[in-house]
Amino acid sequence: MHPVLLRMSTLFLRTLRDDPADAEVPSHRLLVRAGYIRRAAPGGFTWLPLGYRVFRNVERVVREEMDAMGAQEVHFPALLPREPYEATGRWTEYGDNLFRLQDRRGVDHLLGPTHEEMFTLLVKDMYSSYKDLPVSLYQIQTKFRDEARPRAGLLRGREFTMKDSYSFDVDDAGLDKSYAAHRDAYIRIFDRLGLEYAIVSAMSGAMGGSKSEEFLHPTAIGEDTFVRSPGGYAANVEAVTTVVPDEIPLEGQPEAHVEDTPDTPTIETLVGVAQQLFPDAGYTAADTLKNVVVQLVHPDGTREPLVIGLPGDREADLKRLEAQLAPAEVEPFTGFDQHPALVKGYIGPQVLGADSPSGIRYLVDPRVVRGTRWITGANEPGRHVFDLVAGRDFTWDGVVEAAEVRPGDPAPDGSGPLELARGVEIGHIFQLGRKYAEALDLKVLDENGKLVTVTMGSYGIGVSRAVAAIAESTHDELGLRWPREVAPADVHVVATGKDAAVFETAEALSRELVDAGLTVLYDDRPKVSPGVKFKDAELLGMPTIVTVGRGLADGVIELRDRATGEREDVPVADATARVRAVVGK
Amino acid sequence: MHPVLLRMSTLFLRTLRDDPADAEVPSHRLLVRAGYIRRAAPGGFTWLPLGYRVFRNVERVVREEMDAMGAQEVHFPALLPREPYEATGRWTEYGDNLFRLQDRRGVDHLLGPTHEEMFTLLVKDMYSSYKDLPVSLYQIQTKFRDEARPRAGLLRGREFTMKDSYSFDVDDAGLDKSYAAHRDAYIRIFDRLGLEYAIVSAMSGAMGGSKSEEFLHPTAIGEDTFVRSPGGYAANVEAVTTVVPDEIPLEGQPEAHVEDTPDTPTIETLVGVAQQLFPDAGYTAADTLKNVVVQLVHPDGTREPLVIGLPGDREADLKRLEAQLAPAEVEPFTGFDQHPALVKGYIGPQVLGADSPSGIRYLVDPRVVRGTRWITGANEPGRHVFDLVAGRDFTWDGVVEAAEVRPGDPAPDGSGPLELARGVEIGHIFQLGRKYAEALDLKVLDENGKLVTVTMGSYGIGVSRAVAAIAESTHDELGLRWPREVAPADVHVVATGKDAAVFETAEALSRELVDAGLTVLYDDRPKVSPGVKFKDAELLGMPTIVTVGRGLADGVIELRDRATGEREDVPVADATARVRAVVGK
Repeated sequence: MHPVLLRMSTLFLRTLRDDPADAEVPSHRLLVRAGYIRRAAPGGFTWLPLGYRVFRNVERVVREEMDAMGAQEVHFPALLPREPYEATGRWTEYGDNLFRLQDRRGVDHLLGPTHEEMFTLLVKDMYSSYKDLPVSLYQIQTKFRDEARPRAGLLRGREFTMKDSYSFDVDDAGLDKSYAAHRDAYIRIFDRLGLEYAIVSAMSGAMGGSKSEEFLHPTAIGEDTFVRSPGGYAANVEAVTTVVPDEIPLEGQPEAHVEDTPDTPTIETLVGVAQQLFPDAGYTAADTLKNVVVQLVHPDGTREPLVIGLPGDREADLKRLEAQLAPAEVEPFTGFDQHPALVKGYIGPQVLGADSPSGIRYLVDPRVVRGTRWITGANEPGRHVFDLVAGRDFTWDGVVEAAEVRPGDPAPDGSGPLELARGVEIGHIFQLGRKYAEALDLKVLDENGKLVTVTMGSYGIGVSRAVAAIAESTHDELGLRWPREVAPADVHVVATGKDAAVFETAEALSRELVDAGLTVLYDDRPKVSPGVKFKDAELLGMPTIVTVGRGLADGVIELRDRATGEREDVPVADATARVRAVVGK
Repeated sequence: MHPVLLRMSTLFLRTLRDDPADAEVPSHRLLVRAGYIRRAAPGGFTWLPLGYRVFRNVERVVREEMDAMGAQEVHFPALLPREPYEATGRWTEYGDNLFRLQDRRGVDHLLGPTHEEMFTLLVKDMYSSYKDLPVSLYQIQTKFRDEARPRAGLLRGREFTMKDSYSFDVDDAGLDKSYAAHRDAYIRIFDRLGLEYAIVSAMSGAMGGSKSEEFLHPTAIGEDTFVRSPGGYAANVEAVTTVVPDEIPLEGQPEAHVEDTPDTPTIETLVGVAQQLFPDAGYTAADTLKNVVVQLVHPDGTREPLVIGLPGDREADLKRLEAQLAPAEVEPFTGFDQHPALVKGYIGPQVLGADSPSGIRYLVDPRVVRGTRWITGANEPGRHVFDLVAGRDFTWDGVVEAAEVRPGDPAPDGSGPLELARGVEIGHIFQLGRKYAEALDLKVLDENGKLVTVTMGSYGIGVSRAVAAIAESTHDELGLRWPREVAPADVHVVATGKDAAVFETAEALSRELVDAGLTVLYDDRPKVSPGVKFKDAELLGMPTIVTVGRGLADGVIELRDRATGEREDVPVADATARVRAVVGK
């Protein structure tokens, strides 16, 4: 950006002493208090002058690194026709999250939540041969999603800016390369932005496709939970896979037997009764098989009951379950009346399965392997069955990751026990494969003149969200502390006191610095006390604060590093050179 | 922008030999053919890599000049709540042009067509004293309007980028200064963009306010008609005012008399009969008073008939009429059955007027002044009245500019006869006054501690439209010819032939130029003929074309100026220096 002199006396800025009532997280609170953003609508924020400068700095870093990796910038409309999204099913799958509207002729449109369809059609429109590929295209563009609960300021809004890119390759090896190139570019981007991240395996969810990873910025206020192991495994909690135990031979196992277990609708009560009945068995909750009923809602609106079997010492994690079943959604089940096979509190797998008389599908946790023995419901009130052996006494329609992940669980790659952490998703990279190309018929001629379907990747960075994440990770109790790469100004010059010489020196220094290519925020307000000016400087968070004040009598000004708090006195004559050296410009 | 090397071999680009079927104007045709833009939706275009570079260059020029004049950049959401637009009446007034939608809770929203309301509320939220003013704020942002007929590519789309700014002042003198500062900045912007313009007086229309001027780029394909005089008067045709003739004494004028004028439903037939009846009077169409009925549609949907009286030698100009009556709209009138006072083809003013029994409002052309004498309808089929004197025999409810403006009409400021021209609106500046501040209660304390309503200006530049206007005004029959300030690359290096030395030299030169800070489009395609490469270079329109080809045997390369066609041979050793000198970097 071209260097400018921002004068506090005329800057469109009001710092607030009090936190805004609706701000839940520090970044939201501080960005509003420091006059960087202002709420304009539910989930919609206005960037004020200082905030927009940070935004544009982040945008610049993203753009430079995308250009450097050879991606090419384009720009699509936000208002899009329905048809392409109908062709891929996302018009429906997005559900309430999609903003839909009609134009004056009653034609359906949507506000783009992400642009896979449009990029696919563009490449189809322009390219026809393997020689044209690979190509990676990106845009930095406004996205719209009708979030159920917009929250945390810029972290989850209904309108936000995203860098979305898309790669197009003729084969899987090409996709691997494009994916790796994006992954490397993302690493460089977040490194430059000073944003810590964990790269975690993730589920593809409604996007479809095979492989995906998230860049999560670790923070206690994050919405996403992820795991990591000492040996370097990391995954979104939805994507963690369970270590599968070995199968056990069926031969020689005891017969199943039903027991009266009155008043045992919970695992806790059941374990108590089991221990009374068989004091020597040492039963714990891990020996019970809990069967949880959920309502599955398919994208077309149809509903079906689904039962999940998992060890009784684990809670079901519905977010994990839903991630496996996407694009279907999971709701609480309330239809016991319509399904007499399901005896609430005493459900057992013997009556379940797509092929059973009930027709109710039954999925089990990966720990339920052939030969494992369980205490579970007998499908009668007050009765449970013991020694029910998987693969001998009951079967299942499939395996699903639906149990909670716990600290200390083993990493699936053997790299040690998992710890759980929270994070904010700042980037997401997907190997989409051929889902969109197939739906929209994007084919090219290969070397042998044969039509082949193109394989795609999709890659996103939340640009506005990154601003909040940086604020979140760098602030202290006094205010914001911007890294140099994104700070709205390189230096904050504060003139204190009433001495005309102070203001003359500060003004001259500010102009010199701007001439040298720095952007300067200059607190030239004549009637504001030094205390207020210092408080504002700390709140606003420029990386270097230069105070021109009492020291001027001794021929010095003070430089302060906002991040470390370090101070140094510098002779006035050396001020410009010293500030330039500190700033690195 | 950071300098880059754009290789034609990998650039996301396909030039087309044929014009797109739906392109009506040269800029649209060429921007699509040259691979700068591509249609994505009705009235919605995707910027492709070269096009987006031009767009960003225009945006940069606009931003630099807005910053230089002291305006401060902010950025609002596009998805806005209904309430503020309800408060100013524009939720309704915008009619079908506004995209409206509901969120998942059924709450009304709109896609911002322009942001007066939001800026007013922002300033109200932040500022409270005259000391805070003046302030000018701007944004460069995506706007949405549901145009009835999107056309001409980027010139009239449903989604487009606008620089909109707003000034806030405590009094009228301040507004005048802010308005003048914007006007000057616009002059600098369009001068830098190389865009010819006429600054014309305009109507404020639905925006409200007192004074406004348009920056019109003169072009035959323009949608707007404007007038200019030899003495420097210029106005949008809607804003032209008629020179009002002097009043004539009523005394001594002949009495009105009704005559049979069978079969004279048109002015032409009426004049013929009048000349037969009174051969000595020398009657022409200018002596007749034509009464045109229109249907007025108010913003709240109510309709009323309205009659306009104007000299019979002039056609009614419904766009001019509508501009005066905004925000009401004008439709053809079809309700003769419900209004027996209106005798089709024979309407006279004697039965008209808000206070007359018919209650139908009657507005007249400014030429209908007191004492003028007219032939007009007698409100009976086949009869007209002669010598009907304005102010004696009929009255009117108001005066309105509704007659066509003709070449040769006198300029209202006495600066000579008007000529008519067509243009595209590239900028519009408004003195809004206090309309929005009053509706949204934006007041500040003045020097005396008294609350005063703030006065506002609103100023717009169509950024995406400017790209099209530049293409429109600079192209030739071979293709685009970008001015240096906005060209997607500074220079186009074309390597021709099959000689490896040619490609090595071209590659080395391209890299040197990029290192020197130039952006280079390099045609490195190995198997494309020189003829195709030259055609592409002319179509794509970089200002300087460097050919490395046959001349290399003699140690020279060729520089060509795309705009003038001038060529010069330059020794290879001097190439970088010479190109830098020509480009000015």
